Amino acid sequence: MSLKLSKTLILGSQSPRRKEILQLLGFEFSIRVLDIDESFDTTMMAHAVPKYLAFKKNNAIPIQKNEILLTADTVVIVNNKVLNKPENESEAKEMLQMLSGNKHTVVSACCLRHEDRIIEFSDECIVEFQTLDEIEINYYIKKYKPFDKAGSYGVQDFIGLMGINSLEGSFYTVMGLPAHMVYSHLKPFLLELTLNS
Amino acid sequence: MSLKLSKTLILGSQSPRRKEILQLLGFEFSIRVLDIDESFDTTMMAHAVPKYLAFKKNNAIPIQKNEILLTADTVVIVNNKVLNKPENESEAKEMLQMLSGNKHTVVSACCLRHEDRIIEFSDECIVEFQTLDEIEINYYIKKYKPFDKAGSYGVQDFIGLMGINSLEGSFYTVMGLPAHMVYSHLKPFLLELTLNS
Repeated sequence: MSLKLSKTLILGSQSPRRKEILQLLGFEFSIRVLDIDESFDTTMMAHAVPKYLAFKKNNAIPIQKNEILLTADTVVIVNNKVLNKPENESEAKEMLQMLSGNKHTVVSACCLRHEDRIIEFSDECIVEFQTLDEIEINYYIKKYKPFDKAGSYGVQDFIGLMGINSLEGSFYTVMGLPAHMVYSHLKPFLLELTLNS
Repeated sequence: MSLKLSKTLILGSQSPRRKEILQLLGFEFSIRVLDIDESFDTTMMAHAVPKYLAFKKNNAIPIQKNEILLTADTVVIVNNKVLNKPENESEAKEMLQMLSGNKHTVVSACCLRHEDRIIEFSDECIVEFQTLDEIEINYYIKKYKPFDKAGSYGVQDFIGLMGINSLEGSFYTVMGLPAHMVYSHLKPFLLELTLNS
């Protein structure tokens, strides 16, 4: 038994975390991805970047009349600077040293498209890391290889568990999708919440 | 490859969420549980309850010289009242209606014992729920049967994802163990964080 929508939900992301969040919510969906250039103008305001990229991804993926397409982008912002996915171990190490003992902001923006209608929304969460030892950072990078993660960390693996003292906002926004907002924007398409299985 | 401790870690809890948190941290451990009376004096201050119960559970479970025993208890507090595990559907519904559209506090207390030494620590997190529809509450209770969960909800399932706007504190504290504190208290027993696999 899962949540039935009146339209076919398409997730335009290959992030296993986003897939997991939609599954935890209980939606049925399929995945459709294209290789999209994720570059952006570096003079852009940091907070505008994920909205820009979520829209860009959405715009690139074709959909049918009965489909709703959800795309998203998540960025880590420290001192007004966007941290992307690290290119190598030394960049990952540098990012984690910037986050250690500090607060940073995670913004997840979403873009939802159905026929010609586009809905954009985003959410942010402040994340506080305790001070990380160099040996912990090295261990994490070697073992978890966080090269597909903005800011070089996953909130749901070793360094997220041992390192994060506190969040102000939604955990799932840090993980990659503001689950409560995704649900409320998909709610108008929900067929039923009754138990018929 | 996992985190090696100089002692054998025993988790004194049958909560699948606590087991998952220790596994995500990367510890090797085994589980040892006894059927322990979880009642408490209802005149006790709400915040003191989880500490009392974590200690009570710890005290009841026998350990060997080379073992460290971790026990924990999590409570949901609304208006200075402790919400336990619900006994039936109508109690679960009543609890979720109290949480809907409100903030509440989750306290997770831990007790760690090695030989004659006992360490106690606890953490709290403020959780904000958006307003839940009755149909959502009914659907959740029928489908997820949250009868093993304090306050009738799991932060990592449907109602936690669609209903929680925001946390102030640690997600894992709400899930059942303050992961960052468990790690820092077990760190003195860590053998190494180098990669030897």
